[in-house]
Amino acid sequence: MAAREFTLIEELRRMQRIGRADVCLGMGDDAALLDPAGRKLAVSMDTLVAGRHFFADADPADLGWKALAVNLSDLAAMGAEAAWCLLSLALPAGQRDWEAWLAAFMTGWQALAQMQQVALVGGDTVATDGPLTLSVTALGLWSGDAVMARAGALAGDGIWVTGSLGDAAAALDAAFAERGMGGMTADWTREERHFLEQRRLRPTPRLVFGRQAAALGVRVAIDCSDGFLADLGHILEASGMAARITLEALPVSAAVRRVAGRDPQLWSRWPLSGGDDYELILGVAPALEEELQTRANALGLALTRVGEVVAPGRDLPAGSVQLSWQDSIIPLPAQRGHEHVF
Amino acid sequence: MAAREFTLIEELRRMQRIGRADVCLGMGDDAALLDPAGRKLAVSMDTLVAGRHFFADADPADLGWKALAVNLSDLAAMGAEAAWCLLSLALPAGQRDWEAWLAAFMTGWQALAQMQQVALVGGDTVATDGPLTLSVTALGLWSGDAVMARAGALAGDGIWVTGSLGDAAAALDAAFAERGMGGMTADWTREERHFLEQRRLRPTPRLVFGRQAAALGVRVAIDCSDGFLADLGHILEASGMAARITLEALPVSAAVRRVAGRDPQLWSRWPLSGGDDYELILGVAPALEEELQTRANALGLALTRVGEVVAPGRDLPAGSVQLSWQDSIIPLPAQRGHEHVF
Repeated sequence: MAAREFTLIEELRRMQRIGRADVCLGMGDDAALLDPAGRKLAVSMDTLVAGRHFFADADPADLGWKALAVNLSDLAAMGAEAAWCLLSLALPAGQRDWEAWLAAFMTGWQALAQMQQVALVGGDTVATDGPLTLSVTALGLWSGDAVMARAGALAGDGIWVTGSLGDAAAALDAAFAERGMGGMTADWTREERHFLEQRRLRPTPRLVFGRQAAALGVRVAIDCSDGFLADLGHILEASGMAARITLEALPVSAAVRRVAGRDPQLWSRWPLSGGDDYELILGVAPALEEELQTRANALGLALTRVGEVVAPGRDLPAGSVQLSWQDSIIPLPAQRGHEHVF
Repeated sequence: MAAREFTLIEELRRMQRIGRADVCLGMGDDAALLDPAGRKLAVSMDTLVAGRHFFADADPADLGWKALAVNLSDLAAMGAEAAWCLLSLALPAGQRDWEAWLAAFMTGWQALAQMQQVALVGGDTVATDGPLTLSVTALGLWSGDAVMARAGALAGDGIWVTGSLGDAAAALDAAFAERGMGGMTADWTREERHFLEQRRLRPTPRLVFGRQAAALGVRVAIDCSDGFLADLGHILEASGMAARITLEALPVSAAVRRVAGRDPQLWSRWPLSGGDDYELILGVAPALEEELQTRANALGLALTRVGEVVAPGRDLPAGSVQLSWQDSIIPLPAQRGHEHVF
């Protein structure tokens, strides 16, 4: 079944430039034919809606990057190798020259697809009377037992985080404030603001590190997209565990550190609860921690221990987090996680 | 990345009931983990938008069936075995009780999923300010060389069609007329109208026959969704061939035959150009035709020879069709294919 309101799918086919030997038949037939060559599959699908997950006037190249990145980040959290993607676009009817928009969208998409050698093998384009809506399906490959999930964290496991947290949330706060849509202003320098915006618009899926962590034997990870506290909560709920987290141990960029300073409210707002980080949160057995740190160092990727998994108890039931700041236990922020207002 | 506007994804997870041993990890993690067990993959993705591909007030159970069916039909056209699906729903914010709607949607989905043993392994639910929008990704499995595509039809191949054509188009015409939205009335009996509506709302993907055709050695097929003439055109273009088609040979139901009678205009409007048939069009080498017919008979599936592939020439360039009616050549209808108005 294929709705042919637009022949843009032909454009997409032309613009997709990643050649992979395991694509037996790419875009243009009823289905793509792919060869996992005996490996197993990781499959994820996400939908982004204009005005909810991104500003309707977002730069199409940034959007192309991000639409792919957020899906690849899911594969990274499983320890899979990204291989193929499908893209479905519902484009507002008659609103603009979608060919030019799509060409720009694909420059951002291709920049990341090239880095990760991900081939676009299918999808469709349809018209909508509503907002621009993007669905992406990402397919990854993995071998043997080397895979990570949410469940399986054990008491004593270290909780580790890649990169820095809260940059995208701080940038979104600033973007909302600039548009008079709420948010929160801060005295960001121009360079800081640019850095944060890039973190928001062009997240880096941690695919290589995810694969290395899984291969090393790490069995618990999640993609940090809804906010650290919310996503850690998913690990704890799936594992039937609790956690102790040191707020000031959360990895933050120099920009966030300068502005958030020693204000636990801002630490709670951005690195703890903000969304769109697309970093990995890992539960790591003590015996693996040193080697995992070594591997992250070799990749030039920051990796930070922020707390540990503990057995649930009367004061700390399964799924819950005990938060400390400067050696004192402090209450969790009322709003856990990112609301996708967008 | 997962937008959590709705916790409906948890409902979906609860409602999905197909157990498959090759699902290592189903819904609920960053990605599903699947085991193709050395087989190859066929992957298709389609998006349906309310008001474009279905009436906004469509019965959710019918919609659940059809959203799955149209994607499985793509796999049938490749000769693949359906295995897994992902479903992404963009639901109009605050418009109704989506939990009840989703429960009804899943009854239709499950009815077909059960028949084909297709497991729902992932997806997401997000809010939208626009119309209800559904994206489905279907994953199928195939082995060896037994697969079909659009390209590869040869002069002398028979053109065959499963089931009957034009039922859904006739039903859509009636539905538009009933809603005062154009369309075309006809003197359908109540039973005929019901039959046509079921054909429109609950198409049957020809998966078993598709696999058998591919296994027998048929190498050319397409899913007939945009209208017979348009979809046959895709085969001819991809193959660099032309075709001769006998209009009155197109397989039609008793209802369409009674009303269309000997009026080539109605034959052109419904079986030739109407959409949403979800039958298969196959290009079949002469040596295989008899055995293919035998296999269709064994399945109780109508299979009809409607014309043949011919080498392109000056009067009949590649991609074109010569149409005859009662032994006379007649012009093609001006509008080729289904417009998805919807």
